[in-house]
Order: sequence, then structure tokens, then C-alpha cells
Amino acid sequence: MDKRGKFITVEGTDGSGKSTQLELLKEYFAHKGTAAVFVRDPGSTSIGEKIRSVILDAQNADMSDETEALLYAACRIQLVNEVILPKLEMGVNVICDRFVDSSIAYQGFARGLGQEKIELINSFALEKCAPDLTIFFNIPPEKGILRKNSQKELDRIEKESLNFHKKVYSGYLSLLNAYPQRIRSIDASLSVDEVFNNVKNIIEAMGWWHA
Amino acid sequence: MDKRGKFITVEGTDGSGKSTQLELLKEYFAHKGTAAVFVRDPGSTSIGEKIRSVILDAQNADMSDETEALLYAACRIQLVNEVILPKLEMGVNVICDRFVDSSIAYQGFARGLGQEKIELINSFALEKCAPDLTIFFNIPPEKGILRKNSQKELDRIEKESLNFHKKVYSGYLSLLNAYPQRIRSIDASLSVDEVFNNVKNIIEAMGWWHA
Repeated sequence: MDKRGKFITVEGTDGSGKSTQLELLKEYFAHKGTAAVFVRDPGSTSIGEKIRSVILDAQNADMSDETEALLYAACRIQLVNEVILPKLEMGVNVICDRFVDSSIAYQGFARGLGQEKIELINSFALEKCAPDLTIFFNIPPEKGILRKNSQKELDRIEKESLNFHKKVYSGYLSLLNAYPQRIRSIDASLSVDEVFNNVKNIIEAMGWWHA
Repeated sequence: MDKRGKFITVEGTDGSGKSTQLELLKEYFAHKGTAAVFVRDPGSTSIGEKIRSVILDAQNADMSDETEALLYAACRIQLVNEVILPKLEMGVNVICDRFVDSSIAYQGFARGLGQEKIELINSFALEKCAPDLTIFFNIPPEKGILRKNSQKELDRIEKESLNFHKKVYSGYLSLLNAYPQRIRSIDASLSVDEVFNNVKNIIEAMGWWHA
């Protein structure tokens, strides 16, 4: 294959049902026989996992906002260089759980560092592989956090206040407004099946993997 | 005290004798009774030490150059926010073993990422506290590496080839040329006493801490 693979990122606030939908998407690609690799940002490389554990460790409460943003950018570029870019160049599609948009929403908007600074420190990643498509699971933070709280022990980011998660959400809405071609929003308060149906519709409408 | 402290950084290639000189400088300030805090970049914070161990771990051989640069920037801004800036604002002087110039020399020049990119990802730190004075221990890399090799087990950066360290050195020379007012070069191939005499002369000539 000499055609570059497609790079799809998946975004959403905490508790948007992203993980469930990614599992369904994995099955869908397997069933269709479309070559696809699923990764998560931060993580999915040995070095990235080490950095991820520093970021999410609830003990590191005195981590400064800029440190957090730079650590996410470090994880991300390792993932790009080690996995995403080589796979895309081999013609394999890559589906990534979160990417630069997450940093813009969480560190840029919610932490207040600003979108521009976040794009600057992520310019290595953005220059090498900007997403072809981003699916945003859209759910008001009040509902999302309620879902999350009932699930498990929360990490350092999930523990933030509802006010923080509202800022994250408005960051996403701002991105959605700025990049309507790339980012497609799906109502994530619907049932799992309804949401996934919408995911499939968006992907099939791209016409990338016609039989 | 309502006067901001002075921020002095110390730079040099591996094996330049920086550590020995920093010990002497610590004694010198203690003896004079000048309030000074000594830190090292990367490190000197609990979060920074965790990141530092990821950077220097010889097992992480597949770390990409951009990842390395972003991790150094993350350590650095944590150190700035947690220690350097609060101390300077209290009127305490801060002496820092390496700072942004190291990233420019090592990641910008030797790894080839370029000075501009390194300055961009370090803009958080540079905007908050640019050094008032930088002392560069100048020694040709052939001599420096020879010293270092005889000392101890080498970390991931020190293990790089002589060619790499030559590029680091030429990065420093380029910075020295660009910022002759801020960066003062000392011939580090002289004896420990001679080198330290020059350190003292430079610091005293600044006229910051006259009796």
C-alpha cells in the first residue's frame, strides 16, 4: 500500500461514553476487515505510559498547569513518532483516543493557558499529523461527571470541580465552532446503540473505505 | 526585602567541572552571608525528579528528540513555578545548574531541532525568569568527555558520541556569540582554583552584593 492511512481522533469530556464507543468501533473495523490501529493519548508507548502515570498520579497535586501541558505534549509526540506516523505511512488507519484538541480544551481553556500556547507546544505533533477527522462525543458536563463518579476511583484530572469540566466543555464547543469540517459532534446522551449508529454514519459518509 | 533576587545560571558541556565549581560557589555565598538557593535543572522538585529519571534512564533509548525536549521543558517550568520564581520574588538569589541554554545546545543544536523551536516550547519559563547572568564553563568536548568517562557510569545523554558533544559545544559557542552581555565564558581547562577565581571575579564585577 502506498496510500497514507487515515488519522481519526476521538474527543469528549470525562464520562462522555468515549471508551464504550471505541470498543464498538474496534469491532466494526475488525468486522469490515479495514486495517486500523487503536491508541490512546496520553499512553500507548512504554515511555508515554511512564509520563502518563506522573501526569495522572493524584499525589502530584502541586503540578503546575504549564508542566501538565508540556507533559501531555511530550507523551503525544512520542506516540506520534513511535506509532501514529509509521502506521499512517504504512497505509494503516489510526484511531486515537484524545489528541491535541484535548490539551486545548483542558489546559488551554480550563486551566487558562490559552489555545495559542497549547498549539505552539504541540506544533511538532500538529505538523507531522493533523487529524483527518475528529469525532466529538457531546454531553453537558453535569451529566458526564455524574456518569463518571458512579464508576471508579477518580484520577487527578477527573477530580477537578464541575466548574473546571464546564470550562473544558466550552473549550470543545469553541473548537467545534472553529473547525466545523474536521470535527463532527455526536449527541452522547443518547443510548449506546444510537450513538454508535451516528459514529458509523459519519465514518461511512467520508467514503474512505468503500468496498 | 522588596528587591527581586538575582537569577544566575551555570552552563557547560559534560565534564566541564561545573559541579565542583557549584560547590565552591555555595561555600562562597555562605561565607559572604548572601542569601542564595542552589537548584539543578532538570530536578530539584519532587515532580521534576520523577520526570528527570524518565529522561535519563538509559533504558529509554527509543525516546524521540522532541519528547526529550518537551520533558526538559516540563521539568524546567515546574522548577520555575515551584522554586525559582517564589525565591526571586522573596529577594533570594537563585543559582541554577543548567537552564534553557542547555536545551538549546543539546536538543536545539546537537539533536537538530533548532534554536527557535526550543525557545518556543520554553517560552513559559523564559517569560517568567530570563537569567540575569550565565556562567559558561568552556572546555573543548574532547577534554570534557575524557574527564567524565573516568568518573562513573554514564547516563543516556552522556553516552552520546563525541560528535554529539561537539555539536553541543558549537551550540554553546553560538549562544555565547549571540548573548555576549548575559553569558560569560570561563576557560574550564585551567586548575580548579584558577577557574573559581574567575567565577568570583565575574560575580563581584556585577556589583550586586556590595558590602
